[in-house]
Amino acid sequence: MSNIFPGFLANLRLALFHLVLIFATVAYIIAGAYLFTKIEHQAELDRYQSYHSIYKNFVHNLIYDSSGNRSVSEVENMIDAFTSINFRAFKDGLKPTDFLVPQETSRWSMISAIFFTTTVLTSIGYGNLIPISTGGKIFCVGYAIFGIPLTLVTIADLAKFVADMLIMDPTEDPKTGRQLLVLVFLLGYMTISACVYTILEPMWSFLDSFYFCLVSLLTVGFGDLYPSGTVEYMLCSIVFIFIGLILTTLAVDVSGSVGIAKMHSIGRGFDAMKMLNALRS
Amino acid sequence: MSNIFPGFLANLRLALFHLVLIFATVAYIIAGAYLFTKIEHQAELDRYQSYHSIYKNFVHNLIYDSSGNRSVSEVENMIDAFTSINFRAFKDGLKPTDFLVPQETSRWSMISAIFFTTTVLTSIGYGNLIPISTGGKIFCVGYAIFGIPLTLVTIADLAKFVADMLIMDPTEDPKTGRQLLVLVFLLGYMTISACVYTILEPMWSFLDSFYFCLVSLLTVGFGDLYPSGTVEYMLCSIVFIFIGLILTTLAVDVSGSVGIAKMHSIGRGFDAMKMLNALRS
Repeated sequence: MSNIFPGFLANLRLALFHLVLIFATVAYIIAGAYLFTKIEHQAELDRYQSYHSIYKNFVHNLIYDSSGNRSVSEVENMIDAFTSINFRAFKDGLKPTDFLVPQETSRWSMISAIFFTTTVLTSIGYGNLIPISTGGKIFCVGYAIFGIPLTLVTIADLAKFVADMLIMDPTEDPKTGRQLLVLVFLLGYMTISACVYTILEPMWSFLDSFYFCLVSLLTVGFGDLYPSGTVEYMLCSIVFIFIGLILTTLAVDVSGSVGIAKMHSIGRGFDAMKMLNALRS
Repeated sequence: MSNIFPGFLANLRLALFHLVLIFATVAYIIAGAYLFTKIEHQAELDRYQSYHSIYKNFVHNLIYDSSGNRSVSEVENMIDAFTSINFRAFKDGLKPTDFLVPQETSRWSMISAIFFTTTVLTSIGYGNLIPISTGGKIFCVGYAIFGIPLTLVTIADLAKFVADMLIMDPTEDPKTGRQLLVLVFLLGYMTISACVYTILEPMWSFLDSFYFCLVSLLTVGFGDLYPSGTVEYMLCSIVFIFIGLILTTLAVDVSGSVGIAKMHSIGRGFDAMKMLNALRS
């Protein structure tokens, strides 16, 4: 019997496993996004309408009711109350323009929702778009509990796949050169991405863009900076995040494990190589 | 020769290693917090002063300059401009009250800075307190690059320590019962913490509190909800986060590896047990 056919079958099973994992994650992201738009859409439009009414009342009171013979402290109190409302509105995800005209379209478009579910599942969580309704919060809890482990496994699997492609021999001790290569590659990826974001985001300096890339790929996600725009731009940002997280996982796997091994050898001779090799086998 | 003395030495080295790791992480958190307060303190006070001036000008213009004979659209434009400023101020971390009196004290107190560095290093990143100055952002980049791996290793080490305490025999196959126990324990920890936060945070419902605990311990950290208050309260919140992350890591280690093993056995017979045992050895 030839060895080619069983080898081919094994490769097919292997490829199929990767594909099923990727497909499941993508399907979970898209299905979740669809459900979030369904749950949050009407709640958001109601919110717009309610804040717009507050704005209209404020302007009306300021202009028509006893205008001119109002005391300074009265006007100050009105402005302070209005400022508080603005801050609450910001927390609820509104923009200044949302006050002027009651928005007819929700910020929960399919693409922004996909970006939202991506950042939840990768545990970045910028927090620029958040579920406000009770239903949305409950759904988010369950969605994250099952989705984050799935996404972690998919990213770890892809990182392993990339490591295999780099022909890292599991029997050989990891070379410092190779660890450095992965770190330099990750840093290069961040720098190039930061250059692209500097061009595409008119308000971001290079430092802002680099800071955004780093805070995203370390999954900190403060949410002071986040991308938003056309469908193409958001899809590119999602791809940027996934490739970046695969590279980060790879870097942590390669240099992290070696680091742990070195530290543990001080403590109790922990053999991280065994773990790393098990990961790669 | 007796076996007690070398055994004692080995235990001491083992304990010392854990302690050095914990000490290094705590020192890194506190030193980082101190430097962040130094860097951001003056920048923040300047910001308060500048927003307060804007507020004073707005009130002054509204009341004294050609009051009464201003057109509706003029007043509307003024209010809209003021609203935009409010939103920008919110992004810069101000509260409505910061407009009224120019704040003399920075929000970068030592305890809020420690909470900030904790949430950066655990990659939660609520984003309620963020470095605004260029120096602060550059420092944050370097701080996160070195600190996040250190914190990850410390938490993983403590999770392994807890796993060892639970006398998980590495040669024995993990029992489904034990995995369930860890998950139930984590869920119980979140539920009890959520009850405590519901009592301590007057504005949070139980759902809000549970959602906050989950979003924190999965390191998503949207930042729509975050604790802030007395030193004792913040220290308790930091302890809540660390214990929770150790439990989450333990749960992912125990049930996650088994899950990966099951999935990989479909694909290519990946032996996650080997990895898990290497982790535990």
